[in-house]
Amino acid sequence: MLKDLKVKNHKGEVKIGELKIGSNELVVMAGPCAVESREQILKAAEEVKKNGGQILRGGAFKPRTSPYSFQGLGEEGLKLLAEAREKKGLKIITEVIDSEAIELVDNYADILQIGSRNMQNYGLLKKLGKVDTPVMLKRGYAATIKEWLLSAEYIISHGNPDVILCERGIRTFETATRNTLDLNAIALVKELTNLPVIIDPSHGTGKRSLVNPLAKAGISVGADGIIVEMHPNPAEALCDGEQSLTISDFALLIDDLEKVAKAVNKSLII
Amino acid sequence: MLKDLKVKNHKGEVKIGELKIGSNELVVMAGPCAVESREQILKAAEEVKKNGGQILRGGAFKPRTSPYSFQGLGEEGLKLLAEAREKKGLKIITEVIDSEAIELVDNYADILQIGSRNMQNYGLLKKLGKVDTPVMLKRGYAATIKEWLLSAEYIISHGNPDVILCERGIRTFETATRNTLDLNAIALVKELTNLPVIIDPSHGTGKRSLVNPLAKAGISVGADGIIVEMHPNPAEALCDGEQSLTISDFALLIDDLEKVAKAVNKSLII
Amino acid sequence: MLKDLKVKNHKGEVKIGELKIGSNELVVMAGPCAVESREQILKAAEEVKKNGGQILRGGAFKPRTSPYSFQGLGEEGLKLLAEAREKKGLKIITEVIDSEAIELVDNYADILQIGSRNMQNYGLLKKLGKVDTPVMLKRGYAATIKEWLLSAEYIISHGNPDVILCERGIRTFETATRNTLDLNAIALVKELTNLPVIIDPSHGTGKRSLVNPLAKAGISVGADGIIVEMHPNPAEALCDGEQSLTISDFALLIDDLEKVAKAVNKSLII
Amino acid sequence: MLKDLKVKNHKGEVKIGELKIGSNELVVMAGPCAVESREQILKAAEEVKKNGGQILRGGAFKPRTSPYSFQGLGEEGLKLLAEAREKKGLKIITEVIDSEAIELVDNYADILQIGSRNMQNYGLLKKLGKVDTPVMLKRGYAATIKEWLLSAEYIISHGNPDVILCERGIRTFETATRNTLDLNAIALVKELTNLPVIIDPSHGTGKRSLVNPLAKAGISVGADGIIVEMHPNPAEALCDGEQSLTISDFALLIDDLEKVAKAVNKSLII
Repeated sequence: MLKDLKVKNHKGEVKIGELKIGSNELVVMAGPCAVESREQILKAAEEVKKNGGQILRGGAFKPRTSPYSFQGLGEEGLKLLAEAREKKGLKIITEVIDSEAIELVDNYADILQIGSRNMQNYGLLKKLGKVDTPVMLKRGYAATIKEWLLSAEYIISHGNPDVILCERGIRTFETATRNTLDLNAIALVKELTNLPVIIDPSHGTGKRSLVNPLAKAGISVGADGIIVEMHPNPAEALCDGEQSLTISDFALLIDDLEKVAKAVNKSLII
Repeated sequence: MLKDLKVKNHKGEVKIGELKIGSNELVVMAGPCAVESREQILKAAEEVKKNGGQILRGGAFKPRTSPYSFQGLGEEGLKLLAEAREKKGLKIITEVIDSEAIELVDNYADILQIGSRNMQNYGLLKKLGKVDTPVMLKRGYAATIKEWLLSAEYIISHGNPDVILCERGIRTFETATRNTLDLNAIALVKELTNLPVIIDPSHGTGKRSLVNPLAKAGISVGADGIIVEMHPNPAEALCDGEQSLTISDFALLIDDLEKVAKAVNKSLII
Repeated sequence: MLKDLKVKNHKGEVKIGELKIGSNELVVMAGPCAVESREQILKAAEEVKKNGGQILRGGAFKPRTSPYSFQGLGEEGLKLLAEAREKKGLKIITEVIDSEAIELVDNYADILQIGSRNMQNYGLLKKLGKVDTPVMLKRGYAATIKEWLLSAEYIISHGNPDVILCERGIRTFETATRNTLDLNAIALVKELTNLPVIIDPSHGTGKRSLVNPLAKAGISVGADGIIVEMHPNPAEALCDGEQSLTISDFALLIDDLEKVAKAVNKSLII
Repeated sequence: MLKDLKVKNHKGEVKIGELKIGSNELVVMAGPCAVESREQILKAAEEVKKNGGQILRGGAFKPRTSPYSFQGLGEEGLKLLAEAREKKGLKIITEVIDSEAIELVDNYADILQIGSRNMQNYGLLKKLGKVDTPVMLKRGYAATIKEWLLSAEYIISHGNPDVILCERGIRTFETATRNTLDLNAIALVKELTNLPVIIDPSHGTGKRSLVNPLAKAGISVGADGIIVEMHPNPAEALCDGEQSLTISDFALLIDDLEKVAKAVNKSLII
């Protein structure tokens, strides 16, 4: 279905400075759902770095279902992410939720994240084709694999080849987990394209205790890395506390992933 | 779940000039998927008017799954819609696919349509709260009713009370129809809120022969009107030809709806 | 997909004594989820009859998700149904949940109901091909229309042409309603086959207040009748109380359906 | 939700002769979709044994969507399975599709398989509670995890504690794969119960090339073993040829699984 597409003939690796996503070295992205305070994000960054992560995640602009929920710190959050990057020697990934915000976010981020609800915001995708910064495109929670790849094609065909996919769970009839992480999709996308693919077991399960086993599964099935929510104090998180790893959970996860990576002839970057 | 929301306490009617959507008089919106040419849209407008429709639909900016598909005529399409409005005495509804296009589309349209894929584009929704033009918010193809109502709440809470909902089918496991039109949702939304709700049996089924029976069902269950695709020559339509009514199908539909409307103590505006 | 199938070339009507299901006269089946006591079922039967229903429903063997839930009165329930039939002049429909129970249930019932969970119990379907009693085959809650029709084909091809279909809602991501009643399916099945189709808005919505509007929609879209849960005292029902109509709801429903039936050139049997 | 259930307090291991399912030693079940001939099943059995499998699978009674599809060899198929068991030193698992067939199949099989379509055939489940043979209960293709566990509870509460679960993919909107293998479910079931769980990546993906990566993912996430379709000549298989491994695919899979098993502190039985 995809033979003449640019996603099919992609170079396969996306560089973030010296980091290469899509190689045999697996990348680890971690951090809180939202940037909440200077103290919180610096603490999170310190732990990401110490335990072997390379990229700090954290939302400054949050796409929330209710207009009355916390919407993020905005530019102040971007500045705190940049400070954490400087102090801890990490890269940062953060979400762009509107085409008008691209320029602002692009001033700070190393990777622009496009969230599930915006996967088919084609105006936004076209504009992302005009920036030089890599884009991580999350799969829509009810998007088919074909639709997802065609959304990546929008970005690439408009000029930006640096697209990374991210599987974050799909919406099904099952309510015992927040979403159903679709690991079939990882294997199929690897067969259909050369694009790097990251797995997000935090949103994919919605439950802290399931993040570790599903992250291992994601690496086994062929993902090029993980993105997980980790919070210094999940009980006080302003969003997604139930699915956020604690610092010790995160340290354990990295240990476990090293073994699984080796079993599939890969390694963590560390 | 919604007791303090503005959608719960909505005034119930949205006025488009002299038209009132959400009353006992049902509104009919019809026209092609996309504006393709002057001849096509004027012919469509003539038939909408002649058969008792009040609002002409037609896309000038089309959100297409593939970047290589026809993307619409853009502003040229808006001008043709405006010409059809003048000549035939209709109102027009057309889609806004990006927040940057709001101002342009708002110069032409009587109702701004927000498509399924943009239902959770919160940046767009907030900006729609700042315009004076009514907005028709289609349900996301995998959005829960709660999420849909909270998206309407975004628009209203940012200042624009003139929101009309539109159910256009949800994505399920069933592949024999393009989507599954969710008529439960119409009845439930009518119970939970005062917002007007329109039914779109064209996208909701994806099959011309099913549009008539599902439109009747939609009116029976409580919808305040319909939006259907109709094309002077569906076989040559640039998009959605398979679900577009012919002119004679449309005329028959209006006859059938008059009877069903009466059975539920309503009438067509005609 | 179905051109050589027996469901395609079906005679179109199923006779239950003098009743014909699948004609321009619509059938009404009503009664409690389960037969609970002599008093309850006789009272329900009286109201079904008085308000214009022809067929009494009530489960004697209940397929419950938990082994610890009420499983029905068994043969005692069948006897009570038969008594209600005699006293009130109704037909009865009740569920067969296992192939070993066919003979027993067939001694009492006018129509054998096959529930959603058994739609693909092919051993059971084959044996139903060997009985003379009409069978109402509910759609599996996640069965495609094609699978549903092929299950009907199992019964017919094994010798029993008297199959009635029943749409009772499908399982989707939406949780605000118990199931999503699929009215597309009614219209499509009417196009693909000649089989009679009944609509079950009680299971299809799971909510009393939605039964009336969805029943009207079902008749508008082409169903040959309805099956609804009605209980003399829903608050004390042993199962499905939340979706059971009260007696006065039921009387109102019949009034409303008469008008809608007329709008689509049909009538209630009454 | 399950605190007082027998599935919660299960002993954790199911013995098949000397084999223990649910321990740190992972079990491998493999073989064709259906027993087709003596030559085919003996060849398959030889390869299962040679490459390190312990249990031969093969259907003698096939639950097919269409009544006109191949329905299996029946008792002749059971005899061929028994012959293969004797000659090759394997255990056998085969499906029971109707409660009337339990006794017959139980005369031959070491494990009775209950297929996805029968997961809520409660009459069948109750009777399986009365046999001494272990039962492998596949998840219904649209069953929630809670419903699945309650179906297991039916068997255990009626007297048979030897239940093994099997995740085989669920039905979602995605059509690029036959089903969506739900690996969240494996991890969650391990948390909620002590029951052994097997993963079926053949039905879970429907595509030969995806079986290997998803089997690895299944082991990483905590499954106690795999069941895969393998056919000496998939191109000529009477069913499921597209998802059947070749003999060399199977040999490679076992090698790969050994490494992944080790990474999660388990081993193959071999």
